[in-house]
Amino acid sequence: MNYAVILAGGVGSRFWPFSRELEPKQFMKVIGEDSLLQATIQRLKGVVEPAHIYIVTNNIYFYEVKAQVAEFGIPDRNIILEPQGKNTAPAIGLCARLISRIDKDALLLILPSDHYIKKAGNFKKTIKNAVACAKRDLLVTIGIKPAAASTGYGYIKVSTKAKAAESVEYFAVEKFLEKPGLNKARKYFKDEHFYWNSGIFIWRAQIFLDEVRKYLPKLHASLKLVNSVNDIPRIWPRIEAISVDYGIMEHSKRIALIPADFYWTDLGSWEALAEIFPKDKKGNIANNNTLTLDSRGVCVFARGNRLVSTIGIKDTIIADTPDALLVCDRNKTQDVKRLVEKLKSLNRKERQAHLTERRPWGSFTVLQQGIGFKIKLIELTSKKRLSLQRHKSRAEHWVVVSGMAKITSDGKESFVRSNESVYIPKGKKHRLENPLRMPLKIVEVQTGMYLEEDDIERFEDDFTR
Amino acid sequence: MNYAVILAGGVGSRFWPFSRELEPKQFMKVIGEDSLLQATIQRLKGVVEPAHIYIVTNNIYFYEVKAQVAEFGIPDRNIILEPQGKNTAPAIGLCARLISRIDKDALLLILPSDHYIKKAGNFKKTIKNAVACAKRDLLVTIGIKPAAASTGYGYIKVSTKAKAAESVEYFAVEKFLEKPGLNKARKYFKDEHFYWNSGIFIWRAQIFLDEVRKYLPKLHASLKLVNSVNDIPRIWPRIEAISVDYGIMEHSKRIALIPADFYWTDLGSWEALAEIFPKDKKGNIANNNTLTLDSRGVCVFARGNRLVSTIGIKDTIIADTPDALLVCDRNKTQDVKRLVEKLKSLNRKERQAHLTERRPWGSFTVLQQGIGFKIKLIELTSKKRLSLQRHKSRAEHWVVVSGMAKITSDGKESFVRSNESVYIPKGKKHRLENPLRMPLKIVEVQTGMYLEEDDIERFEDDFTR
Repeated sequence: MNYAVILAGGVGSRFWPFSRELEPKQFMKVIGEDSLLQATIQRLKGVVEPAHIYIVTNNIYFYEVKAQVAEFGIPDRNIILEPQGKNTAPAIGLCARLISRIDKDALLLILPSDHYIKKAGNFKKTIKNAVACAKRDLLVTIGIKPAAASTGYGYIKVSTKAKAAESVEYFAVEKFLEKPGLNKARKYFKDEHFYWNSGIFIWRAQIFLDEVRKYLPKLHASLKLVNSVNDIPRIWPRIEAISVDYGIMEHSKRIALIPADFYWTDLGSWEALAEIFPKDKKGNIANNNTLTLDSRGVCVFARGNRLVSTIGIKDTIIADTPDALLVCDRNKTQDVKRLVEKLKSLNRKERQAHLTERRPWGSFTVLQQGIGFKIKLIELTSKKRLSLQRHKSRAEHWVVVSGMAKITSDGKESFVRSNESVYIPKGKKHRLENPLRMPLKIVEVQTGMYLEEDDIERFEDDFTR
Repeated sequence: MNYAVILAGGVGSRFWPFSRELEPKQFMKVIGEDSLLQATIQRLKGVVEPAHIYIVTNNIYFYEVKAQVAEFGIPDRNIILEPQGKNTAPAIGLCARLISRIDKDALLLILPSDHYIKKAGNFKKTIKNAVACAKRDLLVTIGIKPAAASTGYGYIKVSTKAKAAESVEYFAVEKFLEKPGLNKARKYFKDEHFYWNSGIFIWRAQIFLDEVRKYLPKLHASLKLVNSVNDIPRIWPRIEAISVDYGIMEHSKRIALIPADFYWTDLGSWEALAEIFPKDKKGNIANNNTLTLDSRGVCVFARGNRLVSTIGIKDTIIADTPDALLVCDRNKTQDVKRLVEKLKSLNRKERQAHLTERRPWGSFTVLQQGIGFKIKLIELTSKKRLSLQRHKSRAEHWVVVSGMAKITSDGKESFVRSNESVYIPKGKKHRLENPLRMPLKIVEVQTGMYLEEDDIERFEDDFTR
């Protein structure tokens, strides 16, 4: 039986300011209506059934993943939560361990959740070949024929060709190579023995665990202590972080490479994203809210609805969000990571969250704050409710602007309709709920001298916070 | 007696998106706490008394000018309103006519309101010399020793030197020259006979009107029909727009030039503004909300509090406002004018007004709008009130977040304090007033299917709108 293990724990800072620590790249809608995670699941239709799709992610992303995978019929129990990120080898090992306890013959497709692939049909064909190959107890990796002398990808050097089945050819792998400098990259690009490392792997759970025992014995010993997800929080803190490439692939003697027959990018930078978007005659990426004058190669990505205009600008990425702007030379997009590290050292809030913050029950946006007041637009998903709560320092005025709210205040329930308002005095226990099928929108005006998120005492919570 | 005539009618689009049609450059705080108009008035201290300072501006800027000049003791009647802008010759002629009817010996200082001058002490000395010279019935212009081969300024070529009084030397003027090309500008810059035309003039009102009769007889005939400000709306539409340089200075035989002894710029572009600001070691203009990585010559001007970051950017102006962003090559800042024309042809609202719109009673900011609702933050100046009004299509929820409001609703008055709220149903006559000395801040949540500014029926208004 085939299983998929989707790795969705990354904090990917390379798309800042679009991605934030609390909203990493895999949850972003990059192109079309699906997030990258959703597109990854979409591609598995007809390959792996929903009950066999597992998603490994960080604890803090649980509600985000739950909301994003709801439509695919993936059960909540298939969302495997890591208390801390430990890189790919432990995450894959953990799923191999948990799945092989249910199905000892399980065959795993390991998929990053934040890459971009065109031609889903070809993807399925490639995976089918890889599965045939993995059944021969090989660790199969999907290799991408380099499209340029890129210094942003790891490379794989292949040696001889072999057959795994009728019409299924694979390469034996000579070695894995880390991201090269430009000179080496040029050499690799000219040599047909080199492939990009896509991070997509196919193997039997048992075979993988055997290799872990051989090359990462300490990890193997820890994994053996995990008999159910309940064991993870106890075991995880002492596990050493290590990538599957470094820990297993660079050592294993069982590796096979299947060349990909589809367009792939890891979307590792703004420049990689710019490459997949259509451009106008001057090579600009623009929209209705963009005005470019005498500009070439300008790529405007805008979240929010500000007018972005340029005059005489060349080869520049402009990434605009309501609270942070990035203007970046297209040849320097690898340095966004450095910028984010600088933001971290400065303890800037723009690194962590967007102005619109998502919550398990919906989202809120801080529209304005001043001395003694804060204005929020709150959006509550159908049938969801906030915790029963109380604030020490603030009073809240709520005006319903769309939908209907069910409000509990001091134990009494009432329904507040669009164009009606209600007042929650300081210190009063209250709860906000959306009883309808349509979204609920509320303008909240907070007043008081202390208005931070931590002034909240929770009595009951659907999300056990 | 000395009078000042400050020209404050310009719509200056060169500082877009900071300047907007409804908030032109002269009303902007460019450096320090004063607007350019206020700084112009400030420089007149000890030179012209407040009762003798006149400001010519467009009708639509009346309340803005009134608010800005209040602190200087300039009477409202000295704000001369043009129904349409007709360039400088008619505006100066109008003031010369009105002032000479009060004081036939009046001596006028003509001052643009949107230039930047350093060293107010030297400015006063230069003006004193110019006044001595103007008393000899000359049209005096202040010339600026060129600091570069600029193509952005008009030039004046002088000939012989003469004496107007003990220690007051002036130059006879050979000719006025329009903005030159680069080659000519380089020639002018090397030749000590050339000066920049500052647009600052000093002359007797009577002498100027004589010259108008000579060189612009139609304008003179029209001006003779203006006996008080009440005549302006009737006379103004048929007046031809013409600049004083083109209409008078290029023809008059009475012109004298006094060289300036102070730093001056007309702030004609973002680049000119960038020049007067202090830079860091890499030539960047940055602030607490700016992060520049591997960038040089980047000038960030920000209105609002978004984080602006750059990577690998060189010699670029970034002008950021809540609803519009400009990223412009520093050598192309003259083209902002073209961009604004494009915005005009596209009928973009960002050309006309800021998100925070000023009103005679204070200002409001649209924080958010969605289907069926609009959220505004309203700030009401001390002791001011809005009109008594009614809306056909919208209801309004008001939450007072700072100060105290006096509210009239259906003829009944009430006082609403901070953290209190009130509801104004659709169709009810109401009025909002700030009875206190401190500013009043109100969050207004509008609900209804039509929420534009024109849904307003006014019954009484302090500002006769």
